[in-house]
Amino acid sequence: MTAATGPSLATSQRSMGDPALSYPLWPPLPRGCPRTSTPETDFPLEVDYAYEDTPAGLFTAPPATATAPGAGLDRWAPLLPPLDAPGLGEGGTPLLPFGDGLWIKDESRNPTWSHKDRLNRVAVSAAVHEGAPGIAVASSGNHGASAAAYAARAGLRCAVLASAEAPPAVASFLRAYGADVLPVPVEHRWPLLNEIHDRLGYHPVSNLTRTHTGHPFGSEGYKTIAYEIHADLGVPAAVFTPVGYGELLYGIWKGFAELRRLGVTDTVPRMFGCEPAAGGPLAHAVRTGVPAAVVPVGPTGAYAIDCAAGSHRAVRAVLDSGGSALLVTDAELADAQARLASQGVWAELSAAAGLAGLRQRAAAGERFDGPVVCVSTSSGFKGLGVGAEPLAPVEPTWEAVSRILRR
Amino acid sequence: MTAATGPSLATSQRSMGDPALSYPLWPPLPRGCPRTSTPETDFPLEVDYAYEDTPAGLFTAPPATATAPGAGLDRWAPLLPPLDAPGLGEGGTPLLPFGDGLWIKDESRNPTWSHKDRLNRVAVSAAVHEGAPGIAVASSGNHGASAAAYAARAGLRCAVLASAEAPPAVASFLRAYGADVLPVPVEHRWPLLNEIHDRLGYHPVSNLTRTHTGHPFGSEGYKTIAYEIHADLGVPAAVFTPVGYGELLYGIWKGFAELRRLGVTDTVPRMFGCEPAAGGPLAHAVRTGVPAAVVPVGPTGAYAIDCAAGSHRAVRAVLDSGGSALLVTDAELADAQARLASQGVWAELSAAAGLAGLRQRAAAGERFDGPVVCVSTSSGFKGLGVGAEPLAPVEPTWEAVSRILRR
Repeated sequence: MTAATGPSLATSQRSMGDPALSYPLWPPLPRGCPRTSTPETDFPLEVDYAYEDTPAGLFTAPPATATAPGAGLDRWAPLLPPLDAPGLGEGGTPLLPFGDGLWIKDESRNPTWSHKDRLNRVAVSAAVHEGAPGIAVASSGNHGASAAAYAARAGLRCAVLASAEAPPAVASFLRAYGADVLPVPVEHRWPLLNEIHDRLGYHPVSNLTRTHTGHPFGSEGYKTIAYEIHADLGVPAAVFTPVGYGELLYGIWKGFAELRRLGVTDTVPRMFGCEPAAGGPLAHAVRTGVPAAVVPVGPTGAYAIDCAAGSHRAVRAVLDSGGSALLVTDAELADAQARLASQGVWAELSAAAGLAGLRQRAAAGERFDGPVVCVSTSSGFKGLGVGAEPLAPVEPTWEAVSRILRR
Repeated sequence: MTAATGPSLATSQRSMGDPALSYPLWPPLPRGCPRTSTPETDFPLEVDYAYEDTPAGLFTAPPATATAPGAGLDRWAPLLPPLDAPGLGEGGTPLLPFGDGLWIKDESRNPTWSHKDRLNRVAVSAAVHEGAPGIAVASSGNHGASAAAYAARAGLRCAVLASAEAPPAVASFLRAYGADVLPVPVEHRWPLLNEIHDRLGYHPVSNLTRTHTGHPFGSEGYKTIAYEIHADLGVPAAVFTPVGYGELLYGIWKGFAELRRLGVTDTVPRMFGCEPAAGGPLAHAVRTGVPAAVVPVGPTGAYAIDCAAGSHRAVRAVLDSGGSALLVTDAELADAQARLASQGVWAELSAAAGLAGLRQRAAAGERFDGPVVCVSTSSGFKGLGVGAEPLAPVEPTWEAVSRILRR
């Protein structure tokens, strides 16, 4: 077995409202920076490290085996917060060639079949470190089930403030790991999350603020996607990701920025954040020049990324990388989902947003000088319509069967 | 990227009815050995290799990266049939520590979230090699969807002879990859499969015979599980797997037997095949001393491994390894499933059969002199009851929520 490659070098929490402001690493401040946040904008915190102590060879030595515990997130332990919660083999997902310089990072290959496992390994580790009796999470699907799995593995209780409108298969998923699943109307989720945190001491692994700050350690888990892409491919010209709050987008950006800072690479990719056109707080913030926005949201099948509140993290990733915020329609999402399935990757509708964004830019004539990675975040099993339509029997004769097969 | 580690060393198809009998490698003979099979027993074929040409370091050199294409099945290309179909990053699944010497091999981390992807990469490769216009498969779930994914990736058509009783979420899964899904009564599946093969030239990746022979290349894909376990852990004392036809059980056994033959290891594990008590052709064959059996099957929630026909492969794995065939009840399966979920692994009921078998043996006082691996074959999303019960809203007040959390 591969052990972790060294202790965490995390030193402090740095304000994204003013990078000159730092707070101790512990406790994590889930409500963001107390000094720079305003009634309009909550500024997140992120983790700083003793980068100068990064072990030589961290980014060049291959893992001892491809499959052992330690080949996923643990491999990058020096540049993550302490991994005190036991893992489930998260990370180490494949990068699939799709031709013409396009690569799909298939995050459905994580322990609960979405990218959220990278965040929850790190955030639940913070709960273990703090000695919390449980964790609390607001989620309509992937995030809640992932948090429940890591809580179960760590022996912590888990409260999931869910939506009663979760797709039926996702309802089974949310319940699978023994969490207390509490479906409440969406406007009650954050107030109750705050109360569970304040009164019971449950560690929050979801956002507690008006614009999104989230768990200050969460995006760190997503950095490992950048490290893996770099190990497999080098630095791509562009990375397209689905965006709900933008933690994934920011985490991948931060990982590549660290590789440049450490002298491992010379370049960074342009980051493209892809939101459902029904909402789009990131696109609104970038267009209007504010640090983060809250927007009305309309209906979309991409329920997993249908967020009213944006985050300053996502804005930073787009602006600092020279990227862009893209709004994709449900029709564009469905086209991208079909393209993935036609190559053997069944992705949730939301998970196809990265590829939908790339196809939109390509149709507008944009070309990239190098490989492009689209992150497909989650399995098709989490989709809204999954399980809605049973199979219809066909007549069990050669005539009927051959008619279908000769279409 | 890691390239495959060398060309295939496959030489021929060897009869499991008489190992002195060999056939050319091409075409694959899906109806088993034409010379040794009898009306009672169809003897499978398996693949033989020029073992003496195995590249030095195949089992000791680490992969170049943990995540690149080539880190999964391609790494073992010399000891697999030619991998002519494009991959989806199958294999390379994590081995999770569960304490007390128990390890769970989480096969839900494959491209379509079950172990079947290892078989289908290899079997669909044979279809590509043969220039077949499509593939044909009889399956109620995992095998059919996996075959459809690999066929889509390879640009082949795919006919899935399914059951109209597939769980609703599995119905969506089967349709996801664009296959022709043909739900017919079970007694029509094999006759129609034979017709599709004979009349349209579709390559069969399912069984065509009375006792199971299956695709002669299929079990080869499962060997890679043994190679991965060896790389991560060495040779365990015992391996417990779910058994439907027993291709998985045999494949893992063959992989360990090859490691011993090549001088890489000195020992092999005992192989325990775990079947639903509602059927159990393997247990029947072992108990009565026949090469393979067909038994009546009763109802079970473990629909994915509820097989009437057994195979000689599975019998060989049990007898040659000094293992055993175990019958597990649905209650034992549910207990094992709950134990997995309590550690963050949501497995399909059938997928928990390996752990159910181990717990049965442990309760009977059996102890193993070394680590034990249970293979968990598939994601909980494929379960019978998934999606059957929506979430029931709770009153969105602190009083109601705290009452639940303080239980």
